[in-house]
Amino acid sequence: MSEPSAAVLLIGDELLSGRTRDINLQQVAQFLEPLGIPVRECRTVPDIEDEIVAAVNALRTKYTYVFTTGGIGPTHDDITADAIAAAFGVGISEHPEVIAEMAARYAAMNTEFTPARRRMARIPHGAKIVKNPVSGAPGFQMENVFTLAGVPQIARAMLEDIGPRLEGGAVVHKVQLRGAGLREGDIAEALGAIAAAHGDVSIGSYPWYLGVGDHGVALVARSRDMAALEGVRGELEALMRRLGVEPVAAD
Amino acid sequence: MSEPSAAVLLIGDELLSGRTRDINLQQVAQFLEPLGIPVRECRTVPDIEDEIVAAVNALRTKYTYVFTTGGIGPTHDDITADAIAAAFGVGISEHPEVIAEMAARYAAMNTEFTPARRRMARIPHGAKIVKNPVSGAPGFQMENVFTLAGVPQIARAMLEDIGPRLEGGAVVHKVQLRGAGLREGDIAEALGAIAAAHGDVSIGSYPWYLGVGDHGVALVARSRDMAALEGVRGELEALMRRLGVEPVAAD
Repeated sequence: MSEPSAAVLLIGDELLSGRTRDINLQQVAQFLEPLGIPVRECRTVPDIEDEIVAAVNALRTKYTYVFTTGGIGPTHDDITADAIAAAFGVGISEHPEVIAEMAARYAAMNTEFTPARRRMARIPHGAKIVKNPVSGAPGFQMENVFTLAGVPQIARAMLEDIGPRLEGGAVVHKVQLRGAGLREGDIAEALGAIAAAHGDVSIGSYPWYLGVGDHGVALVARSRDMAALEGVRGELEALMRRLGVEPVAAD
Repeated sequence: MSEPSAAVLLIGDELLSGRTRDINLQQVAQFLEPLGIPVRECRTVPDIEDEIVAAVNALRTKYTYVFTTGGIGPTHDDITADAIAAAFGVGISEHPEVIAEMAARYAAMNTEFTPARRRMARIPHGAKIVKNPVSGAPGFQMENVFTLAGVPQIARAMLEDIGPRLEGGAVVHKVQLRGAGLREGDIAEALGAIAAAHGDVSIGSYPWYLGVGDHGVALVARSRDMAALEGVRGELEALMRRLGVEPVAAD
């Protein structure tokens, strides 16, 4: 098989309205990076079943893994589980083990296990459960599609349960060098030449402007080949020093 | 014409690797909201021309407006302008007015106008310029597609230049009520009934968990119909109060 890849599908009106600034793409990407599974695409769609279904089906055939976040709570706008079932053309119903676990959890909390809460135990047929140690209601895995909660702390915890199920690839290593005071226009030609000479290393250039006295450029090099990466690191450091800027290694 | 809609296309490896947490979707959405132009979809793609072209062409035919961010700087990984030209099947070359303005700007800064900096004056044929008062190098408008910088401060400034070009729609008003201590499972049935009874109002439920003593649910109602929205506000407030929670209005 070729190297694995992933896509992220963020589900929720609140992301598109600007109410909520997403952090799940970043945390999924950071979780997958050491496993050698790069995220290749992300889509954000509203709480509309047809839109979710279309996006799930576009992504699950194109990438090794798909991670969805959002829309698995107890309220009327939580429609992700139904949309995943529809995307796969399977039924959906209460999962007996999930019902049992949730019933016990709510009983221990002296909280009524309402019909709305039972909705969170509805799992597409054929899906595997993804544990939610934070608040009980689980996510699930349908073939290569993992459905997580939208609340970032819960999504993060669910990733831990998913990790062992993923077949990783060769890890992409990275080097990041920050050059304070550097301007992209002063390094672009030399940087382009370095990038062109090292096709096995991907090099990105990211300027920052936080005010007159605090600007610069961060250069990020990525490669599965450590030796090639170290070679590029040396060239990037030399490039910065030729311009009188001391490179600072960063994570 | 039906109500206008928008899509956002975020371009950049740094967003998919988890290096950078996007804020441009949120700021574009917040800019468009008072103009009555809801964002309906967002995609994030890497710095790969074919991926950018495919996404631009998928979105520009489906939505009234498309806003891209990222990839218009001077370095080798800045390929958005070429990708937009390819998506529209037009050529791209240095724009004489942009060259003149940038040459004057760099001369005033006593900075060399290098070939890399000249790359930022390459504009797809037929595009209109979008002013960049922050750092000079412009964005551009190609039919219904607006190409902005990725640096959030610059993207924000470019939106100001774009605003007058947009044909807005009926503004979607919103009410947000926060209920501290509320749990979604306790309100879901009644909330679903309110949502079902008011098809012209979209109601979202967003739990927060910031610790044992700081959790609750924010209810957000949106509608173009102010009277319907105020009716729903009253019902949502009454719902919270029935559970002993005092609703707090929020932006």
